[in-house]
Amino acid sequence: MNYVRNAWYVVSWADSLAEAPTATMVLGEPIVVWRSGGELVAFEDRCVHRLAPLSRGRCEDGKLRCMYHGFLYEPRGTVVQIPGQQNIPAIAKVRTYPVTSKHGWIWVWMGDPALADEKLIPPADGFDDPAWIRGESQMDYDAEARLVNENLLDFSHISFVHAESLGAGMDYAETVPDVIAMPRGVRFERWTAGKPFSRTSFKATTDPVDVWQAYEYHVPGILLSRRAVFPPGTAAEFKLKCPDYSRAISEVTFSAQAVTPTSEFGARYFFGWAIHRDHGDEARRDRTLAALERAFLEDKVMIEAQQRILNLTPSPSVMPTVHDRGVVLFNKIVEELRNQELTEK
Amino acid sequence: MNYVRNAWYVVSWADSLAEAPTATMVLGEPIVVWRSGGELVAFEDRCVHRLAPLSRGRCEDGKLRCMYHGFLYEPRGTVVQIPGQQNIPAIAKVRTYPVTSKHGWIWVWMGDPALADEKLIPPADGFDDPAWIRGESQMDYDAEARLVNENLLDFSHISFVHAESLGAGMDYAETVPDVIAMPRGVRFERWTAGKPFSRTSFKATTDPVDVWQAYEYHVPGILLSRRAVFPPGTAAEFKLKCPDYSRAISEVTFSAQAVTPTSEFGARYFFGWAIHRDHGDEARRDRTLAALERAFLEDKVMIEAQQRILNLTPSPSVMPTVHDRGVVLFNKIVEELRNQELTEK
Amino acid sequence: MNYVRNAWYVVSWADSLAEAPTATMVLGEPIVVWRSGGELVAFEDRCVHRLAPLSRGRCEDGKLRCMYHGFLYEPRGTVVQIPGQQNIPAIAKVRTYPVTSKHGWIWVWMGDPALADEKLIPPADGFDDPAWIRGESQMDYDAEARLVNENLLDFSHISFVHAESLGAGMDYAETVPDVIAMPRGVRFERWTAGKPFSRTSFKATTDPVDVWQAYEYHVPGILLSRRAVFPPGTAAEFKLKCPDYSRAISEVTFSAQAVTPTSEFGARYFFGWAIHRDHGDEARRDRTLAALERAFLEDKVMIEAQQRILNLTPSPSVMPTVHDRGVVLFNKIVEELRNQELTEK
Repeated sequence: MNYVRNAWYVVSWADSLAEAPTATMVLGEPIVVWRSGGELVAFEDRCVHRLAPLSRGRCEDGKLRCMYHGFLYEPRGTVVQIPGQQNIPAIAKVRTYPVTSKHGWIWVWMGDPALADEKLIPPADGFDDPAWIRGESQMDYDAEARLVNENLLDFSHISFVHAESLGAGMDYAETVPDVIAMPRGVRFERWTAGKPFSRTSFKATTDPVDVWQAYEYHVPGILLSRRAVFPPGTAAEFKLKCPDYSRAISEVTFSAQAVTPTSEFGARYFFGWAIHRDHGDEARRDRTLAALERAFLEDKVMIEAQQRILNLTPSPSVMPTVHDRGVVLFNKIVEELRNQELTEK
Repeated sequence: MNYVRNAWYVVSWADSLAEAPTATMVLGEPIVVWRSGGELVAFEDRCVHRLAPLSRGRCEDGKLRCMYHGFLYEPRGTVVQIPGQQNIPAIAKVRTYPVTSKHGWIWVWMGDPALADEKLIPPADGFDDPAWIRGESQMDYDAEARLVNENLLDFSHISFVHAESLGAGMDYAETVPDVIAMPRGVRFERWTAGKPFSRTSFKATTDPVDVWQAYEYHVPGILLSRRAVFPPGTAAEFKLKCPDYSRAISEVTFSAQAVTPTSEFGARYFFGWAIHRDHGDEARRDRTLAALERAFLEDKVMIEAQQRILNLTPSPSVMPTVHDRGVVLFNKIVEELRNQELTEK
Repeated sequence: MNYVRNAWYVVSWADSLAEAPTATMVLGEPIVVWRSGGELVAFEDRCVHRLAPLSRGRCEDGKLRCMYHGFLYEPRGTVVQIPGQQNIPAIAKVRTYPVTSKHGWIWVWMGDPALADEKLIPPADGFDDPAWIRGESQMDYDAEARLVNENLLDFSHISFVHAESLGAGMDYAETVPDVIAMPRGVRFERWTAGKPFSRTSFKATTDPVDVWQAYEYHVPGILLSRRAVFPPGTAAEFKLKCPDYSRAISEVTFSAQAVTPTSEFGARYFFGWAIHRDHGDEARRDRTLAALERAFLEDKVMIEAQQRILNLTPSPSVMPTVHDRGVVLFNKIVEELRNQELTEK
């Protein structure tokens, strides 16, 4: 597992986090997320006594009790009570992880706590804006997170994996988006000018329109994507660069997706989709989210099959194409950040 | 797997052992138990011919026939017939294990047969006495037997794992029983004096009583537990030591439980519970056994979760408490017996 | 896995091969079989781009398209199209395997393609002859192909594994067939003279008859078996050697079976059975095939249990009997062929 540690990983949708302590797993480490009063707390999910999971524990007045033999922890990870015993060893303390709630997600920092900086959370800010009607879902992969990242960094797969579902034709894979490097990620921009717009479960147009799509992929594995449909000529007017969204005529949508490596060969994939209130309603949101769930199952089938082939391959090697520019760039950024972490240790 | 080999391991309840050859597993070794006439026999479960399991074989006039290619074994493990072949090689013999039936259980000796001594079978003698009304059950663990032993050697978990089921309050974990070392085990004694007695599915009292509980844990993993309720003052009269059971007024119960390591990460757990005929009946026995099965599933959930955390932990270490005295003592006895075995080899 | 590579392995019944690309596995290698026009093609099931399985691909005008990112392959394994990219690297090519259809089966050659010779396909020619009424089936084993081969090379197991199903008595295991070495296999011949003939779901006779059975086992794991019932005296007339089949009075049957190692601990077992049109009909064929499926499940249960015991055995060793002559001979042939392959490399 060669993932960046000094990064925020999504472990849950904020509004689906249970009141009770919740077990999660990031980079092979078992973590329990709980609330001390209102404050979010993340511990290693392992009691100092005999390594029972604290996620099977109970919250008591802002503290967390292990429900195997009753060790009680305050939010900084220190044991404050051992039933039947007066003395508490000074080393009776579990590791804590920086944890925060932002943009609708719960994020855990896996690296050096001293370096945890909320400014490194990618700006999934569409989800904070009531102007957007948002839906959310998730699924688990029996595959390396890396493979899911690579899937999301090369949208040319849409023409093939989703040939029967999302309705993008072969021409989508024939054109290559602009790729722009960012400090901790990659940005893609793409105009499709002067063509009718049609997607399964999306509103279809018969008149030609200009479609703008911009998506970013941030470390450790966060996709932020915006799309909007404009009158013909808008692409040319903005010189094929980012348009003024207020000029959009329909399909003003936003998607944020997060891929978290749970273990070496497992990942949890969170995806949300939103439409601007001026261009859609809850029914449209539900229809699209259901269509995305079906489409993302197609990715899951393909990627898990790819993983099985990888596991059968003694010395796997790949042959990147022009569409892999984003993949190569992103993997290089991850590798450099990771090497930097290892060097600084 | 660092378990004692020179010990008797429970492989079955005696009355549930099938007439047909029965496959079992102890310490990772496949064993078949069968009956030659009335006599119990235990073989390695592996035909000398091509290693097919003899537990898929057939008893024929006090002999066991492998039902792959027909090798016939007499009870000492020697092949006496090979279909189609006159000559039988002198080495055509499987390993046999000492096996016996006692206290309602079938026991197999895993060590040097010359050292097999039935006096080393822990005295689960309550089960032989018709004055006791006995019930029995079992379950399998996806966990090391060691973890189940440790669970049964520290009853303070009852206040937490069984908080909702067995009804022992927090005070149970606040008091520490006396721990007495035995040659191949540990004995715990505990008086709870002058308090009402209440357990889920047990008879409850509102008047204060004195409750005596004594339990022993024997190598390789046998729990023998007795409890009885006495009039107030009995604890003081017996100076907090073992009382005269005939003076008990209710709740005279006995439990025997056995933990057998089937493989490195698997265990089979046999548990029986009995109430003295003067203090209960079959209905009470059934109610309690059902309650115990529910409670022991709580242990199973916790211990299997603990095992998963252990497997994720590179260098696991524990932090024993005052309640771990029995655990530490017992593990030390096992370690010494095991080292002695390895030295003598 | 020490199997011969320069051999034809059965991967499918010819008439059950789907029109769409079909995933299969031989010797741990993922293979996709597809049709380019009418021609059979076998590729390694692994796209050069990112190792996605081509078996999830789509046939397009005699070519195969990977449905992950659209790489298009012509039948010799060369990539001829990469969406969005003009240049195609010269090394963009997957491994191909010689593949052919013969005797009702699809065969793949796993060794040096230059040595692929269809004359090495064992003569399962009964299946090509319309005079035979044929049925076919298959099952998967969680066991080494080697163990299934050894089962089929020693029919004495029929008296035990199939004691309740196929109806061969103990005397079948008491007699040993003649064993004859062939260049790439072993031949067994057996007369049962002057006894009534009876098999479960087979026609039974009460009068004594002479039964001839001849079966061959060919590299890599192909069983070809013929049986016929003759008037008493025929065995003597032919001096216990191969009779003239046209003189048979009933039960003229043929079976061809193939064992393919899919992985180190997995095998796929194809079996077909046929009766000569002069001696039976479709109803008889169906009855027998159903009986064989039940019987072969008995083998599967035994062999998978044998595999589990093997996996638990640190240094497994076997004790061959007089019935293992064929097993020993065949294993020696395989070993010599395999050593020869390794030496010539």
